[in-house]
Amino acid sequence: MTTIPTSATTPTIGVFDSGFGGLTVLRALIERLPHARYAFLGDTARLPYGSKSRRTIARYAAQSAQFLVREQGAEFLVIACNTASALALDAIQDAVPVPVLGVIEPGATAARRASRTGDVLVIATEATVHSHAYAAACQARGLRALEKACPLLVPLVEEGWTDHPVTEQVIDIYLNELRAEAAAQGLKQDTLVLGCTHYPLLRTLIERAVRPGVKVIDSAESAAQAAVELLNGRVAPGCPILSESAAVGSDRVGGTSSPERQTEIHCFATDSVEKFERLGSRFLGRPVGHVELIDLGG
Amino acid sequence: MTTIPTSATTPTIGVFDSGFGGLTVLRALIERLPHARYAFLGDTARLPYGSKSRRTIARYAAQSAQFLVREQGAEFLVIACNTASALALDAIQDAVPVPVLGVIEPGATAARRASRTGDVLVIATEATVHSHAYAAACQARGLRALEKACPLLVPLVEEGWTDHPVTEQVIDIYLNELRAEAAAQGLKQDTLVLGCTHYPLLRTLIERAVRPGVKVIDSAESAAQAAVELLNGRVAPGCPILSESAAVGSDRVGGTSSPERQTEIHCFATDSVEKFERLGSRFLGRPVGHVELIDLGG
Repeated sequence: MTTIPTSATTPTIGVFDSGFGGLTVLRALIERLPHARYAFLGDTARLPYGSKSRRTIARYAAQSAQFLVREQGAEFLVIACNTASALALDAIQDAVPVPVLGVIEPGATAARRASRTGDVLVIATEATVHSHAYAAACQARGLRALEKACPLLVPLVEEGWTDHPVTEQVIDIYLNELRAEAAAQGLKQDTLVLGCTHYPLLRTLIERAVRPGVKVIDSAESAAQAAVELLNGRVAPGCPILSESAAVGSDRVGGTSSPERQTEIHCFATDSVEKFERLGSRFLGRPVGHVELIDLGG
Repeated sequence: MTTIPTSATTPTIGVFDSGFGGLTVLRALIERLPHARYAFLGDTARLPYGSKSRRTIARYAAQSAQFLVREQGAEFLVIACNTASALALDAIQDAVPVPVLGVIEPGATAARRASRTGDVLVIATEATVHSHAYAAACQARGLRALEKACPLLVPLVEEGWTDHPVTEQVIDIYLNELRAEAAAQGLKQDTLVLGCTHYPLLRTLIERAVRPGVKVIDSAESAAQAAVELLNGRVAPGCPILSESAAVGSDRVGGTSSPERQTEIHCFATDSVEKFERLGSRFLGRPVGHVELIDLGG
């Protein structure tokens, strides 16, 4: 495993997802580390990963990680895909010689920090819930977690109905079902984890729908924060990758901001560039620009 | 191209889809031809086809068709996948030595028969609309067609909300948007084509939402009816494949029903057998039974 360069050159952070939902993780990274170079790969030709076997997912994810490291020079990888994080993190770590951070462990860690009762709820896609990766990561931190699949939320986000009465009703239905199940199990939840990279776009509606006092943990934000903390331990003080905003709350990095430096983002997809370019900006909060089509083979 | 055997043995009809939505086509076939043997293949490992290139879809669909013909002995193929019908029908016909029927042309033919004004509306998935296959097939029959993608309807069906107030609202929103667009273009539509194999499960809600006098064409039903008509020209009178119900309206086949014969259905999937088995019965209208997992390679 190599370490992040300690020179003043701008290192490259690779972000990988099976689709483009992981752009919410990239967005959260940019907010904290605006002066890095980013390479984002969406393996859109082979999504959804959720319906595929662990072996197939490991092979796809390893190929994608190798592209980011070998072709794009990524020195640090964030796996912004819940399915790959749940089923293939080891395989990715074996496949590349750089540090790799998944999206599930940071979400569970943030839930541990936020929860006083020790009972948390998790909403995610069917595939993520089926893997029980969040429940396992929460349990490893002494939390009781109840997970619920919310299959309509991703299509509602992709339809652009992020502030729509129909979406509000669907969220209410899902959360009511989840609360009823939690009550039946005697849970006293005070934390809700958004376990899908699409859900940050629904955060306003979800926060409106939860009971008062329940904290909403956005696993995209948590993963970005964990990346900053990891980099804090690896990057030399004054390295331009860490801006002042990233250094907030840190006592290890002084952080000099370089206003003339721009965030550099390169997006790649294995298919569906049109949809990526059209919808991606909603997730990234800025134009994704040109998305380059690449071929990773079968 | 071989012809359907004219012996009294029960021929095998192969039905292919990228997922399991095509089970609605199988259901419509069974209603008309209850005494056939059916082999259904859902290429679930490689769905969705809609986001893939024409070349890739043609390769996948040809492999799937060859499995049904070579391994399962299918003597007639129905392509119950809109994307494959739109982009790969020629490639499938080249790949197998049996008659192949797609799902788009029959839908357009049924619309031509139903419409007096010559103006029709089509609702379908994003991929099908993007291909403009229905518009082209309608235009070839002298119809003006306006297509609209309704991306939330498939997930709503898969969530099981086929008679749910949320689904009712979503259908109203989509149809209102489509009607406004049709009015802006000066269309006087009297026909609505359901251009997706999932939509027959929403037929009741959709029929409730259309204006009085607008006929709803179910392309699954149309494809099954076209299969019967094709077989009428190929199967010898008295062949047990054609039941009395199938022979209704036909003057070419006498049709003898054999009450002791059972419909024989064999389902295959390339992945996601669990979801196929769980949701498939809703589409088929009867239990799908055991779904066999097969590997078609990359």
